[in-house]
Amino acid sequence: MDQLTRPILLLTDFGLRDHYSGQVKSVLHALAPGSTVIDITHGVRKYDVAEGAWMLETALAAAPPDAVILAVVDPGVGSARKAICVEPGGRSFIGPDNGLLSCAFDDEQRRSGVLAGEHSGVAVYELSNRRFQRPEVSHTFHGRDIFAPAAAARATGAPAAELGPVLDTAVMLPLFEGAAAADGSITGEVIHVDSYGNLVTTIRETQLPADYVVEVGDATIEGRSRFFSDAARGDLLTNVDSSGFMAIAANLGNASDELGILRGAPVTVRPR
Amino acid sequence: MDQLTRPILLLTDFGLRDHYSGQVKSVLHALAPGSTVIDITHGVRKYDVAEGAWMLETALAAAPPDAVILAVVDPGVGSARKAICVEPGGRSFIGPDNGLLSCAFDDEQRRSGVLAGEHSGVAVYELSNRRFQRPEVSHTFHGRDIFAPAAAARATGAPAAELGPVLDTAVMLPLFEGAAAADGSITGEVIHVDSYGNLVTTIRETQLPADYVVEVGDATIEGRSRFFSDAARGDLLTNVDSSGFMAIAANLGNASDELGILRGAPVTVRPR
Amino acid sequence: MDQLTRPILLLTDFGLRDHYSGQVKSVLHALAPGSTVIDITHGVRKYDVAEGAWMLETALAAAPPDAVILAVVDPGVGSARKAICVEPGGRSFIGPDNGLLSCAFDDEQRRSGVLAGEHSGVAVYELSNRRFQRPEVSHTFHGRDIFAPAAAARATGAPAAELGPVLDTAVMLPLFEGAAAADGSITGEVIHVDSYGNLVTTIRETQLPADYVVEVGDATIEGRSRFFSDAARGDLLTNVDSSGFMAIAANLGNASDELGILRGAPVTVRPR
Repeated sequence: MDQLTRPILLLTDFGLRDHYSGQVKSVLHALAPGSTVIDITHGVRKYDVAEGAWMLETALAAAPPDAVILAVVDPGVGSARKAICVEPGGRSFIGPDNGLLSCAFDDEQRRSGVLAGEHSGVAVYELSNRRFQRPEVSHTFHGRDIFAPAAAARATGAPAAELGPVLDTAVMLPLFEGAAAADGSITGEVIHVDSYGNLVTTIRETQLPADYVVEVGDATIEGRSRFFSDAARGDLLTNVDSSGFMAIAANLGNASDELGILRGAPVTVRPR
Repeated sequence: MDQLTRPILLLTDFGLRDHYSGQVKSVLHALAPGSTVIDITHGVRKYDVAEGAWMLETALAAAPPDAVILAVVDPGVGSARKAICVEPGGRSFIGPDNGLLSCAFDDEQRRSGVLAGEHSGVAVYELSNRRFQRPEVSHTFHGRDIFAPAAAARATGAPAAELGPVLDTAVMLPLFEGAAAADGSITGEVIHVDSYGNLVTTIRETQLPADYVVEVGDATIEGRSRFFSDAARGDLLTNVDSSGFMAIAANLGNASDELGILRGAPVTVRPR
Repeated sequence: MDQLTRPILLLTDFGLRDHYSGQVKSVLHALAPGSTVIDITHGVRKYDVAEGAWMLETALAAAPPDAVILAVVDPGVGSARKAICVEPGGRSFIGPDNGLLSCAFDDEQRRSGVLAGEHSGVAVYELSNRRFQRPEVSHTFHGRDIFAPAAAARATGAPAAELGPVLDTAVMLPLFEGAAAADGSITGEVIHVDSYGNLVTTIRETQLPADYVVEVGDATIEGRSRFFSDAARGDLLTNVDSSGFMAIAANLGNASDELGILRGAPVTVRPR
């Protein structure tokens, strides 16, 4: 693995109307000109840390094993929240300490919310070394001024330990998974509405009963389809999306519009 | 031509809100790290194969002669439609067999809808070799799991014949061109409404009479302007767009909004 | 500085729905394959030259010192407006002569509107040499046919003087700054509404009094916050944005929506 060519992956809520992602890329190019920069997305809902964390986790299944991940959904920019680098081995995760980087931690850590310390295999460093920040740090754009220089440093081989001191706690979101009830039903939520109107939920394929119905809003949908085209044009269906989570879709249609269901809505899978 | 550096061009209907294009690029980077990846657009209207085919055709006039084109507008993903690689010589086209890749075929083939076979100069291969697919292939995201690995294979020099068997038929859309009537008029349709509100039609510059009027919706517009600024601010005009197709625009305005005309509307050019 | 690897930065009003930025990148790759292409943004408001000029100026603070800037917000494409290359030293600016490239000029030039000529340190060349244009130049897409080839030429080491003759005038927008009134107040305008709804103004940090109130629309806001989180959720605040201009924001909210204020609205800072 050539440290000089580690790719840098970006995930933010910046959107693409503004010049924010372009400024981040300019800094990366200046400091790590040999690195390929890949936009995972800049379309996370504004300030929606959980959606960003889920999109990051599901995108990484296809990502290079040596990737440096630069993720910014940062409603608390400039406040007391820390800036961190998480090192689970192989990949490096740079961003705010608000749960966005949760997928860098292992399942046990996320279920307990407790970092096992420097020797757990996942180390967390605070990005406090001014040498790896832009000379002037703004109050509102740490993506450009703190996170991008740190990502470039890791991409070009600077040791993580030089970025700042080891932290013994970090903010972790709970694992994305459904909650099982006594009657065998599984409850989760819509964690992402994609641009096709598909409703992707926190319920994992591994949690699904052999046969079931899905309840969302006023609708009950009988699962489980494999292909969108298993349903008639415009008809609702449930399937497992490309990241292994249960989803609700409409073949050649827009399930979100048809159902009036948005991000955050509760979803229940009921065995039958 | 260095096979190791063939650029890969992307055209999809994924949009940019989601992490879908980012996952495709992650796979491409892992498998073809030396290739430059160029986003033609991810803004094709959802499921609109014809618009995608037209955008691909018109974008390619400026594309490198050795480009690998990865195009995904795939309403039938996972169903019986095949995944294909089309090789007209020089460039490689990877995507679903639904007409999206029509510009890879020559005009005669598209007018007849018949592939002349392996020796016509345009060969079609089915992407069935599991060695050039991701280990686990989802039912809903062949862009990531089948098309991207195949594009990376072609970009890095794997022979097309290794991707799978030769096919003797392929779905081709008719040539984008207007239909001539006995009275000398030409009828086409709005194939693309761009983000400026310009209405680009299927009628080619080569089909236009010396002097003419254009009818669309309730409007009649006297052609032909060269520059947008030939019309007063906000006034409608017709011209030939940068890809050689007749278009309707409003100088510093939005023709689509002004006329209430959308993708698919019929347009007639009448000599005068 | 290796001339063969000068990065090329793009800023346009093309949006990302269409295949226009993709065509520009295709041309750049064909002519300057070794250059990294960085999207600053394609989200400038359609035809809004001043917003584009401001976004370019503020983005460049983070840009590589040898960057070639290709900027296209070009409502007069094809008309009498010239196509130019501006060379302030280090960087190269390519685009229409309509004020978009104003940040390539120094403050004195912009205040006076007068180019001091070839020996001022900022030279302007007209892009008239057909050798650095595409063989066929459309009437509507000079970004692809004239500006991109010129940018590729500069990125790969062709001397600016070969692009065309030196011009002794160029269109320059006035410096972005507030106007001071006799009572000590400063008046400017909203030059950019970002995708978070933040209202960024033309009033510079250096112009702000020690203590002040900001008037915009019907609202009066007491300044000056450092962090968004200095205000309660949804509350309005004023701060200095990451580019050094006074801005109006709502913590975790959307100031533009809350206030009903759009691009171009007047803003006054009043000492207290």
